[in-house]
Amino acid sequence: MSPSRKSRRSPLMGNHQRSWIWGRHAVLEALRAARWNPTEVRWSDDLPRETADEVARLAARLGIPAPHEPAERLRELCKSREHQGLIARMPAYPYLDAREFLEAMPASPCLLVLDSIQDAFNFGAMLRCAEVFGVDAVVVGAAGQCDVTSQVVRSSAGAAHHVPIVRCESFTEFLRELAARGVRVVAASEKAEQSLDCADFRGPTALVIGNEGEGIAPERLALCDETVSIPQRGRVGSLNAAVAAGVLLYEVARQRAAAKHS
Amino acid sequence: MSPSRKSRRSPLMGNHQRSWIWGRHAVLEALRAARWNPTEVRWSDDLPRETADEVARLAARLGIPAPHEPAERLRELCKSREHQGLIARMPAYPYLDAREFLEAMPASPCLLVLDSIQDAFNFGAMLRCAEVFGVDAVVVGAAGQCDVTSQVVRSSAGAAHHVPIVRCESFTEFLRELAARGVRVVAASEKAEQSLDCADFRGPTALVIGNEGEGIAPERLALCDETVSIPQRGRVGSLNAAVAAGVLLYEVARQRAAAKHS
Repeated sequence: MSPSRKSRRSPLMGNHQRSWIWGRHAVLEALRAARWNPTEVRWSDDLPRETADEVARLAARLGIPAPHEPAERLRELCKSREHQGLIARMPAYPYLDAREFLEAMPASPCLLVLDSIQDAFNFGAMLRCAEVFGVDAVVVGAAGQCDVTSQVVRSSAGAAHHVPIVRCESFTEFLRELAARGVRVVAASEKAEQSLDCADFRGPTALVIGNEGEGIAPERLALCDETVSIPQRGRVGSLNAAVAAGVLLYEVARQRAAAKHS
Repeated sequence: MSPSRKSRRSPLMGNHQRSWIWGRHAVLEALRAARWNPTEVRWSDDLPRETADEVARLAARLGIPAPHEPAERLRELCKSREHQGLIARMPAYPYLDAREFLEAMPASPCLLVLDSIQDAFNFGAMLRCAEVFGVDAVVVGAAGQCDVTSQVVRSSAGAAHHVPIVRCESFTEFLRELAARGVRVVAASEKAEQSLDCADFRGPTALVIGNEGEGIAPERLALCDETVSIPQRGRVGSLNAAVAAGVLLYEVARQRAAAKHS
């Protein structure tokens, strides 16, 4: 599965500060994954020789400038003292185009559809879960959704560089297209009576997770084949959004692995 | 299950700031749960009349003072502007005594044993998962473990007030006692070859989760009946500690619920 990238029509990521990512792990992950390429890299003497060599090699391969700078300049640019001698300027995130993705979609896909996640920490944590449990793509809408910012990259522990993220102009249309292609669309909702483990995720599956505050929009929920909830027994009310996403994706992955081995 | 509380031998929680909790939800949760009682409550005019009345009623029932103060004084005491007109001074957390807990333990318990969790956010998130998935108690060691601080209470979303927390002087002895009582001790370890869903959690179970950096100490791991891991397929490496705890406890709860209904 390698649909070509969408041309860069997305707006630039907010302010200047947010377009830089920093820290050795974060920048190296971007350079190694080569999915969302920086437009430039800057490094200082804080970087160990060996890492500086790897940065130079990777940047040359991707054809991007990687000048040496004083550490103070790095701090000015990324507005953080925690740059560890390595920062990268990121262009708008290269979302996959929904139409192209659908045309090249794997035979029995496992998709995570996010309906208007607003918190960068939650969005990043969900990307991390998606990557760990091997979903084929994360799908987001064009409006009301947190963009892939440097904070999202951080809280995704680098997963934002690996898991493909599709952006669709119309969620409704996308869900209809999935149904037409035989993908079972399952919504996660705290109000659902059916327990997560009673649903069947073994075939082509799209799991829909809603917004932190309001859940899945009614017009989108109406397009889902079924709704499931995580059985919860305590008095606190509910799991943290990222933990809930992890549990949902674990159950999907568990069923799919069991089906493969049976 | 209601073993009596350990007499207050635990050291006072760190500095002065940490011994206050603040915010309407957090303080009301403490007063309503009546498990870990504040030594005093203070409120200001920021508090709606109705809530002030409830606070006065609950405080009177618990026999603790609840004086009215200027909002500025509340801010000075808790060192946060986000007090919402309600703060409470907390004594050391009243851990349950391990011996008393063992003697009154339910017939087929589900326990979460934490080996030296150091991060307050992770500890709180794990308490929240434990509460949501209905574990009977969380067990921690006396050394190298994050204490139940106001930050832990916050990240537990109040679960710290509901889930019983047992503290044992010797982990080794505690694990041996569990084994002697027929409790299956299962360690979670990323290195384990056995997948989580292949273990049997239907009987008396203690799930052991290790420290964020080093996992479970070898001498403790040697006392476990088996080790399990969460099957992970991505390139990022691993789940966030709180998400991992949620997934582990979901699987335990799932098996136990299925066993009950079959």
